Amino acid sequence: MNEDKQGTLRVGMVGYAFMGAAHSQAWRNAHRFFDLPLTPRMAALCGRDENRLRAAADQLGWESTETDWRALIDRDDVDLVDVCTPGDTHAEIAIAALEAGKHVLCEKPLANTVDEAVAMAAAARRAASSGVRSMVGFTYRRVPAIGLARRLVRDGRLGEIRQVRAQYLQDWLADPEAPLSWRLQKERAGSGALGDIGAHIIDLTQHITGDRIGSVTGMLQTFVTERPVPTESSGLSAVAGTERGEVTVDDAVAFLARFDGGAIGTFEATRMARGRKNAIRIEINGTQGSLAFDFEDMNVLHFFDATEPAETAGFRRIVVTEPEHPYVGAWWPPGHLLGYEHGFVHQVVDLVTAIGEGSDPLPSFADGLQVQRVLSAVQESADKQSWLEVTA
Amino acid sequence: MNEDKQGTLRVGMVGYAFMGAAHSQAWRNAHRFFDLPLTPRMAALCGRDENRLRAAADQLGWESTETDWRALIDRDDVDLVDVCTPGDTHAEIAIAALEAGKHVLCEKPLANTVDEAVAMAAAARRAASSGVRSMVGFTYRRVPAIGLARRLVRDGRLGEIRQVRAQYLQDWLADPEAPLSWRLQKERAGSGALGDIGAHIIDLTQHITGDRIGSVTGMLQTFVTERPVPTESSGLSAVAGTERGEVTVDDAVAFLARFDGGAIGTFEATRMARGRKNAIRIEINGTQGSLAFDFEDMNVLHFFDATEPAETAGFRRIVVTEPEHPYVGAWWPPGHLLGYEHGFVHQVVDLVTAIGEGSDPLPSFADGLQVQRVLSAVQESADKQSWLEVTA
Amino acid sequence: MNEDKQGTLRVGMVGYAFMGAAHSQAWRNAHRFFDLPLTPRMAALCGRDENRLRAAADQLGWESTETDWRALIDRDDVDLVDVCTPGDTHAEIAIAALEAGKHVLCEKPLANTVDEAVAMAAAARRAASSGVRSMVGFTYRRVPAIGLARRLVRDGRLGEIRQVRAQYLQDWLADPEAPLSWRLQKERAGSGALGDIGAHIIDLTQHITGDRIGSVTGMLQTFVTERPVPTESSGLSAVAGTERGEVTVDDAVAFLARFDGGAIGTFEATRMARGRKNAIRIEINGTQGSLAFDFEDMNVLHFFDATEPAETAGFRRIVVTEPEHPYVGAWWPPGHLLGYEHGFVHQVVDLVTAIGEGSDPLPSFADGLQVQRVLSAVQESADKQSWLEVTA
Amino acid sequence: MNEDKQGTLRVGMVGYAFMGAAHSQAWRNAHRFFDLPLTPRMAALCGRDENRLRAAADQLGWESTETDWRALIDRDDVDLVDVCTPGDTHAEIAIAALEAGKHVLCEKPLANTVDEAVAMAAAARRAASSGVRSMVGFTYRRVPAIGLARRLVRDGRLGEIRQVRAQYLQDWLADPEAPLSWRLQKERAGSGALGDIGAHIIDLTQHITGDRIGSVTGMLQTFVTERPVPTESSGLSAVAGTERGEVTVDDAVAFLARFDGGAIGTFEATRMARGRKNAIRIEINGTQGSLAFDFEDMNVLHFFDATEPAETAGFRRIVVTEPEHPYVGAWWPPGHLLGYEHGFVHQVVDLVTAIGEGSDPLPSFADGLQVQRVLSAVQESADKQSWLEVTA
Repeated sequence: MNEDKQGTLRVGMVGYAFMGAAHSQAWRNAHRFFDLPLTPRMAALCGRDENRLRAAADQLGWESTETDWRALIDRDDVDLVDVCTPGDTHAEIAIAALEAGKHVLCEKPLANTVDEAVAMAAAARRAASSGVRSMVGFTYRRVPAIGLARRLVRDGRLGEIRQVRAQYLQDWLADPEAPLSWRLQKERAGSGALGDIGAHIIDLTQHITGDRIGSVTGMLQTFVTERPVPTESSGLSAVAGTERGEVTVDDAVAFLARFDGGAIGTFEATRMARGRKNAIRIEINGTQGSLAFDFEDMNVLHFFDATEPAETAGFRRIVVTEPEHPYVGAWWPPGHLLGYEHGFVHQVVDLVTAIGEGSDPLPSFADGLQVQRVLSAVQESADKQSWLEVTA
Repeated sequence: MNEDKQGTLRVGMVGYAFMGAAHSQAWRNAHRFFDLPLTPRMAALCGRDENRLRAAADQLGWESTETDWRALIDRDDVDLVDVCTPGDTHAEIAIAALEAGKHVLCEKPLANTVDEAVAMAAAARRAASSGVRSMVGFTYRRVPAIGLARRLVRDGRLGEIRQVRAQYLQDWLADPEAPLSWRLQKERAGSGALGDIGAHIIDLTQHITGDRIGSVTGMLQTFVTERPVPTESSGLSAVAGTERGEVTVDDAVAFLARFDGGAIGTFEATRMARGRKNAIRIEINGTQGSLAFDFEDMNVLHFFDATEPAETAGFRRIVVTEPEHPYVGAWWPPGHLLGYEHGFVHQVVDLVTAIGEGSDPLPSFADGLQVQRVLSAVQESADKQSWLEVTA
Repeated sequence: MNEDKQGTLRVGMVGYAFMGAAHSQAWRNAHRFFDLPLTPRMAALCGRDENRLRAAADQLGWESTETDWRALIDRDDVDLVDVCTPGDTHAEIAIAALEAGKHVLCEKPLANTVDEAVAMAAAARRAASSGVRSMVGFTYRRVPAIGLARRLVRDGRLGEIRQVRAQYLQDWLADPEAPLSWRLQKERAGSGALGDIGAHIIDLTQHITGDRIGSVTGMLQTFVTERPVPTESSGLSAVAGTERGEVTVDDAVAFLARFDGGAIGTFEATRMARGRKNAIRIEINGTQGSLAFDFEDMNVLHFFDATEPAETAGFRRIVVTEPEHPYVGAWWPPGHLLGYEHGFVHQVVDLVTAIGEGSDPLPSFADGLQVQRVLSAVQESADKQSWLEVTA
Repeated sequence: MNEDKQGTLRVGMVGYAFMGAAHSQAWRNAHRFFDLPLTPRMAALCGRDENRLRAAADQLGWESTETDWRALIDRDDVDLVDVCTPGDTHAEIAIAALEAGKHVLCEKPLANTVDEAVAMAAAARRAASSGVRSMVGFTYRRVPAIGLARRLVRDGRLGEIRQVRAQYLQDWLADPEAPLSWRLQKERAGSGALGDIGAHIIDLTQHITGDRIGSVTGMLQTFVTERPVPTESSGLSAVAGTERGEVTVDDAVAFLARFDGGAIGTFEATRMARGRKNAIRIEINGTQGSLAFDFEDMNVLHFFDATEPAETAGFRRIVVTEPEHPYVGAWWPPGHLLGYEHGFVHQVVDLVTAIGEGSDPLPSFADGLQVQRVLSAVQESADKQSWLEVTA
């Protein structure tokens, strides 16, 4: 079926753990709710362990498998490569795919180093000139409440932005016996809370405000310096063994920031905040109003309009499930909530729409590079105990 | 000092338990924050046990004591009698005081029976004709958020009222070993949750909507039918003895209601809701908007304005601490919260202002009588298992 | 693929509006996250309008279409019939399907009348004896927080249940110009808020408490008695025309209830509560604890444990996204929320698991009949203005 | 009356604006609810403008007046001097009072400079040796929920403290036309948001954790650099004139901190956060649990106990109104909330109790000095754009 659509978009995905499952759900369902110019087809899944790969492809619904990502890129029947691997392999895979003329969706953070990200952004720019598209996966931008936040700022409802506070709080590492997964190894993950979750709040606050962080001073902390080495792992979970290894990334990070437009910001990302599971909290204060968001109540945006009379002014708890809200009209009636995975569906919608329209989707690899520069400046400022400019 | 004020209002109060302490706090402080036409003077406290009475007067700051309420009423140096006794004595004391030309503030519910309340309202009407004022103590009307709710309805911000839901949830009787205080004895208290706390939500919803309950059907329940007889008691607390006695009032009550103006309502009052300490929850839905209030967050009123565009419509969390809000300007800056006792202070403010201005304060004894009629109709409808009109 | 599974379950679905889309999402995705004994196959979609049917099948991913539900039932390649039509057709389709040996999933309420529901329950009982399974679609039971609520009650964490309060608040009919859809026509829908959303809170409270409503007294209200007749409609939305027609169902309903086990309850369902979009609120008070749930924050269950010391007792805000929670382990890491549609996925999981195991799934048609008896008693009690027993 | 008490404590207070009113309320009422060793007597109020002073004394209930604080200190019938003036006069008045043998309660921040604070702490230490007591007015310590937070940390319920995040958000300066009060002039106030409200969260987090901030790096910002000069002012309010003057203090401040015990912290204080009126938000994460507090819901403490099974773990919303909670037993039944001013009452209770017992009350001037050192380090680190140790 779907023959009335203009065509299909054949997707090859590398990696099938946590992000792979989330991306699969998006590729499977986006065209069932949204009108897309191209229908995604889950052509091939790529991984190294053939047995686990086959099981994953079967479970997630991919048509075929490849055990070498180079082979995947070589396939004629793959139009887009979706990179869901740890950060140390992003650059190599993504650049090769772009050079082979494949569109690329790459998980965040774009890379483990600024140098890699520079190369990726350059590759993306070159590819774009021949109509090959690329996008970095800051999916939280696609939560409807975040989309509404961006819209309200752009529409001037907050006036001039003065203050930003952003926190990304988790607690899955609070237990010292939580195993040493790849996310805790600097050579695989680049950094810890900083790059994994700090990257999200950097992107989100810059996206919502439409402004960029210009300088920072940061502080990193590793509270648990040794952990059991896992015997096997998948996604965020792993099975601890008896050997112990060194944690080489940060458990928690905090930094102060100045935005180019004059706003000041405080940022914190941690995996040690007992009782906070995935609390992405963002508050924006402007001259005319304020916004507040918490991912633990992700269908809600709080909005204070300071132009209202004091008698009835108050933070409005907007349940972001109305047809007027971003992405929501395609789903359920008002009050019928969306979940975590819907952000990934919306990401596919925006990406496929851009590919179909022949435009460059956002956030671009250049945007991903800029986030990488902020991450790098935070790390370096912490090392130097001083403020640092984010280089352009 | 205070000699520049026109004069004093000499108060005699009967009872010094929970309500007595709250009223004392109000008489002591009202003129320190509000500009009153008369300055209250805590002239005399009345109770039966001389030793406990003297200790209470000392603690609460009353100038003198009387062990017989008739003697109190006879005193020339008492202008107002404040009745803080159990309900079975309200009628006798209040009527005698009014007939002696004393203004009367009487705790709610006005009486234990409709007949008593009728007599009291008649006495109040007679007294009013010679400038003697009376008021029933539905203090929750004086919580600023409730005052704001009333104002918004009156200003038409909700349109036509369609639905009312009101709950008063406590849990101090959930423990079967909580002692058998006077509040659990029908001959002292008249009823249980119905008259003690149900009366408040009847008054509040009628006050906010400006409408009256016309018919009801109710259900009463006593979950714990025997309790330890207390050896001594004070306020809401008591010390349990070994003897057990019968609970002769309801632990919980619920009723459906139709308002004269066409709205429908659901009401519930209970002392058995584990974890709810003093949760007075009121929601009002109108054609143009809605209100929600919970006394456990008493400085806040939630307001939904349905005339706003759907994109940014949401319940506003109004922190009712602005100078524009009822009573608040006399207190602290915005965001500096008020507490339970402030309602009593505001009650004194409104009462003394009315006395000073020569007007009849609200809620009147006639209002108290009408609440009593609703209470009576709920009880009778529960007995008859049918709907009943509230007689006028 | 999936050849290692024991087989497939070929599904034929009747209806493709709001519920059809939700059910399709469930049939499409359940086996991607859960280990099922049979893999669902979306074999055939049935509807009357051939053009719209084909478009819907294409959009939702059904393999074939039928314009006559009898033809669907006759097909050998359909193992299960999923009934997503208005209530007036449930009985005929479901009974025919069961008699043809097809498993049946039927949307709620089971039927428009008790008589129909009796016939359906009888058909289900007969079918069950030959291994044909049936289930009624009270999907909210499958929200993880509701599953946890049920578990806590069953484990005795609340003690003996004393009080239940349940509200289902929507506002999509608050606007008098909202069109007269089939849900507002008694002959199609049976009743209004009562059967459509009131049925859910009846089922939920009985499910969580493990108890049944024994007697009720109710009140129904139609605030807007005439509405524009729609020229076309789909799901909950419709386009209003210029003609006006009579609303023949209730906009709002409230009732008091007594449960067989001694608890008392208050219930309210309305489509007129401005600002409440899909607020299913349930509170349960027991001798040892309390629970509170609101679907507008559907990933959260509030639990008060009265056995804790008073110093640290408080309602716990349990974010129901831990692997220990019902259904959740198959999805995302803690704090990554689920949405409305996940309840439908879980419904498919439970249904297919029961079919695979050869057991009867819950809620059964007998359970659906019992809810129908409560609905009927509420309606009749409102007519008679008295209490009514729910017949067994 | 009160003759059965051991004696009275005669209080002289300097200043009668916002803080003066709050302190008066405390002196007037503390002994009405708490059993104090000495009964406070509001002996004398001191201010410069005789007319306004007399009106204030009359309004607030002080027995006499003095227009020169030196005369107040000279009076034999004053036992304690309560300093409620702007920060630039604290040192001179407090030191003179201590040297005259008067107990001193001094509003926070202790001084405008570290040097002044050093002198005050030294004077306090000298005075203490002859039984003269001193205390700095960090009243938020006396909010019952904060007292409970301290208790839970001290009892080990949080384990080892890892992270602290604290915000004090107000918005009264968001309007650029808000007048230039003394609080915006460096020579009167010392600093802006930093010293006025930042001091509170420094004290609160150190108090709750029982730990001290060892190093900081900060950022200060003045968003509105010119404001109308007021023609008259009182408390937080003032009347704007037509002339404009320079704002010489910060509107907002943020800083990162490392505690001596190993915890890391993020702090922010601002008067520009539209919609936040007096939001003091504190979160503490430890190895075994977490706490969260917001003064806009000041009767509540949220507590997460990580030792609970994951199935039922969640932040408990503790309504801090139980007799088991700090200070609460003297007030109302559970669920009857306290307000802003009660912290001042509790401050008097603790101070008078310490005086009566002959012990040194907390927080001491030495504690106030340490907070001053942190404030100074934040300011200096912001100037130098680097981290700074807090000198001991």
